[in-house]
Amino acid sequence: MMIEVEKMKYFIDNLIEKIEDKKSRICVGLDPHLNLMPEHLLAPEILENLESNQEEAAAAVLKFNKNLIDAVADMTAVVKPQMAFYEKMGSYGIKCLWETAAYAKSRELIVIMDGKKNDIGSTAAAYAETYLQSKNVSADALTINPYLGSDGILPFLEYKERGAFALIRTSNPSAVDLQDLKLDDGRKVYQAVGDFLKKLGSSYKGNCGYSNLAAVVGATYPKELEEIREQLGSVFFLIPGFGAQGGKTADIKAAFDDEGRGAVINSSRGINFAFRRKEYSHFGAENYAKAARAAASDMKEEINRTLK
Amino acid sequence: MMIEVEKMKYFIDNLIEKIEDKKSRICVGLDPHLNLMPEHLLAPEILENLESNQEEAAAAVLKFNKNLIDAVADMTAVVKPQMAFYEKMGSYGIKCLWETAAYAKSRELIVIMDGKKNDIGSTAAAYAETYLQSKNVSADALTINPYLGSDGILPFLEYKERGAFALIRTSNPSAVDLQDLKLDDGRKVYQAVGDFLKKLGSSYKGNCGYSNLAAVVGATYPKELEEIREQLGSVFFLIPGFGAQGGKTADIKAAFDDEGRGAVINSSRGINFAFRRKEYSHFGAENYAKAARAAASDMKEEINRTLK
Repeated sequence: MMIEVEKMKYFIDNLIEKIEDKKSRICVGLDPHLNLMPEHLLAPEILENLESNQEEAAAAVLKFNKNLIDAVADMTAVVKPQMAFYEKMGSYGIKCLWETAAYAKSRELIVIMDGKKNDIGSTAAAYAETYLQSKNVSADALTINPYLGSDGILPFLEYKERGAFALIRTSNPSAVDLQDLKLDDGRKVYQAVGDFLKKLGSSYKGNCGYSNLAAVVGATYPKELEEIREQLGSVFFLIPGFGAQGGKTADIKAAFDDEGRGAVINSSRGINFAFRRKEYSHFGAENYAKAARAAASDMKEEINRTLK
Repeated sequence: MMIEVEKMKYFIDNLIEKIEDKKSRICVGLDPHLNLMPEHLLAPEILENLESNQEEAAAAVLKFNKNLIDAVADMTAVVKPQMAFYEKMGSYGIKCLWETAAYAKSRELIVIMDGKKNDIGSTAAAYAETYLQSKNVSADALTINPYLGSDGILPFLEYKERGAFALIRTSNPSAVDLQDLKLDDGRKVYQAVGDFLKKLGSSYKGNCGYSNLAAVVGATYPKELEEIREQLGSVFFLIPGFGAQGGKTADIKAAFDDEGRGAVINSSRGINFAFRRKEYSHFGAENYAKAARAAASDMKEEINRTLK
């Protein structure tokens, strides 16, 4: 029993260890936009009547994901399936999501389910049990939205070996609408959310000094990113918005601490569908996995160079 | 073609018409907490190893939901399945969710999927397509979390005959943590969120004067509820927190306009598992649907009396 408890690592320690083993600070989003899939895997006709072809679409996505995971498994510590694109294929999509997670775990990757879950305590607990506690397969972490406050967040921190990434500052243009409103104490809403999460997560710190309660901070607002890193020493960051959404490598340097720790940078479309990008189009759609590997490798190296 | 366009009603007009037809301002949550289910439908042994028994659990829930829907179909205009409890049963749960929605629609009920979705524009669009646009079956509306601002919300308003319910003030004790922070202009965060949603929704108003962009406002904070109703004339409210969470009928009077319109009051556990409540326990677990019908009827009448 003692041994079991000792073997159980904090999620955040496991994450940081894997990042250092792989020397890679990237996170590969698994966002199967159906209309971007290689046509030899998913014929456009199938999408014309998706509701009758969900099973076929999900089978194609699973094949695509497995090849992608194989191609990037030594280039990344983490993958992040975006649930929206799986839910689009109904119950078959959810089966595909779980099979994708299981496959990524069989390749010893950390899986962050991106569902931005949020609800009252009893419902948050149901989500946490489903995605984090589950006995056979489970994700390692879940993205969450913090708007409901502590009792909507704490259920996701129940399991030492699992984590949560709460939104602080998102990467979309309209993030400013509500996140940038100014409080009477001078802070903006997103800064107050950051302070709140830092405090809430302080009881869930691993040996590395970071907390199992991590955060999502967009790469598309570099000034904010720098401020938030300064403000939130013990909060690990997942940085979306790199690549397709416009975030650049120089901008994300500020996300890391002095030892080059403290964040992973996500790219989804830019890696998943690299064969559609000019730089990698020579691979062709048939070799989408090789194109994805090249894009992941380039991104990994570019970030590492920036941090030297 | 003209006829088709004319036939397509605003979501909110359809909702208000159905509420008036049924003379009922309740919304019946369909929240299958597995451990509260009648034992003759779902044996406790099944829950001990849920991951191997998801199919069996989902079949029991579907049967439960259909009987519940039949029992309350003339007592309510709206049902609201909480997605968390379906996701708990994996892909079988999602199948059960869609079959539940289809069954409710076959009984001419309005279906609000409660997933509190939120993401960047392209991902929000994927959610909207899945839950609102879908050709065969779809929900009529979706609950959403507004933290990402307008580009995370507008995709849910793309379809005239569908709606969205955005969180303003939630019903949980920790709602105060972030929603009550004070802005430099004197408003609280939730009030600013309300103003923002009112403005955003003003281009999506039906003939009834309310907007397809509706809101979730908890019944557990009566003072706030009254203020928000005053502030947000054209925003229709979904009020959770009634019953199990402590909201009382007198408290929710303020949610309605002078004509008794403008809101539906949700109860989930209090109706779904009415046979477990002292007042309805004489029905017994076998007659859970009759107990649910009695609880729904009492709630409907109580609200109508309060508004007289």
